[in-house]
Amino acid sequence: MKVLVETSARHIHLSVEHIEALFGKGATLTKKKDLSQPGQFACAEKVQLIGPKNTLMVSVLGPARKATQVELSFTDARTLGLKDVPVRESGDIAGTPGIKLVGPAGEVDLDEGVIIAKRHIHMTPEDAEAAGVKDKDIVSLVINSCGRSAILGDVVIRVSASFATAAHIDTDEANATAAFGECYGEIFR
Amino acid sequence: MKVLVETSARHIHLSVEHIEALFGKGATLTKKKDLSQPGQFACAEKVQLIGPKNTLMVSVLGPARKATQVELSFTDARTLGLKDVPVRESGDIAGTPGIKLVGPAGEVDLDEGVIIAKRHIHMTPEDAEAAGVKDKDIVSLVINSCGRSAILGDVVIRVSASFATAAHIDTDEANATAAFGECYGEIFR
Repeated sequence: MKVLVETSARHIHLSVEHIEALFGKGATLTKKKDLSQPGQFACAEKVQLIGPKNTLMVSVLGPARKATQVELSFTDARTLGLKDVPVRESGDIAGTPGIKLVGPAGEVDLDEGVIIAKRHIHMTPEDAEAAGVKDKDIVSLVINSCGRSAILGDVVIRVSASFATAAHIDTDEANATAAFGECYGEIFR
Repeated sequence: MKVLVETSARHIHLSVEHIEALFGKGATLTKKKDLSQPGQFACAEKVQLIGPKNTLMVSVLGPARKATQVELSFTDARTLGLKDVPVRESGDIAGTPGIKLVGPAGEVDLDEGVIIAKRHIHMTPEDAEAAGVKDKDIVSLVINSCGRSAILGDVVIRVSASFATAAHIDTDEANATAAFGECYGEIFR
């Protein structure tokens, strides 16, 4: 089955508490652009990450979440000077490194929540059934690009009626496979 | 066949003319460390690349070559603000972008020579024969890392008696496959 391959650049999801700490009491997120996943959106707000070595600006993705989570590439983690950032599924942040966040109205010393996102494929129940896969399956994703074709393993399937079917890889993975522009991959078990 | 996988960070090879232009009349390269390929070495000298958007420092690799060549990752090219840097084999620089180089003794406006190196495997004739591959063959390289396993396609075989057998990938590719530390891959046809 062919799936759209989308590249996630570094970004942050914020809790309501941290939105207020960074952007001011009563502040809410300002939608700038809808993302492919229904209900998810890129925000006008940006947050500065203060690493041991460097700082980086990240876009905020909405809506607010229960826990703040920073998603980086290995390149970003190295730029910031953060060591031992693990490859994790979204939401699985126990024991991950923290980082200092700076917004226009304040700062947050995040205790944990910095991850490198495990590559994954969001799927509707219908598409998962058609592809013969189920939630939490580990599959491979075949990307046939010009000059940097690859089969990425360790891709986790995530199935929900609230998803649109799309594979998400990070900027390092997109660069390594030249998955630029409108790119489609194929699920391979 | 198992082969050592080495990561090439961004670097520059310089012609004798450009070594003198950047480091002074009569200057030669100062060996800092031998590399895995016999006769190749990392130098104490560094060169600044001046891109349209940002600058980056790169290490010089010796010995001097016939033509100056800059090897970047897609991440580096984007940081510099260079567009349309092609994925090419080393030495194949016709029609590639140029860039301004700055050294302690002068500058060079390079007309062409900026590439993103095509992933490749240096092989001795003996190892190539044992693996059943020959010079210029295109193969796949299986990397089994923890959490980011992948099969990289479009890997070019380069055979020479002057080589040591080792696969070379760039930093984006190493990050995408978590090929850190001492890493071995397998050739797959």
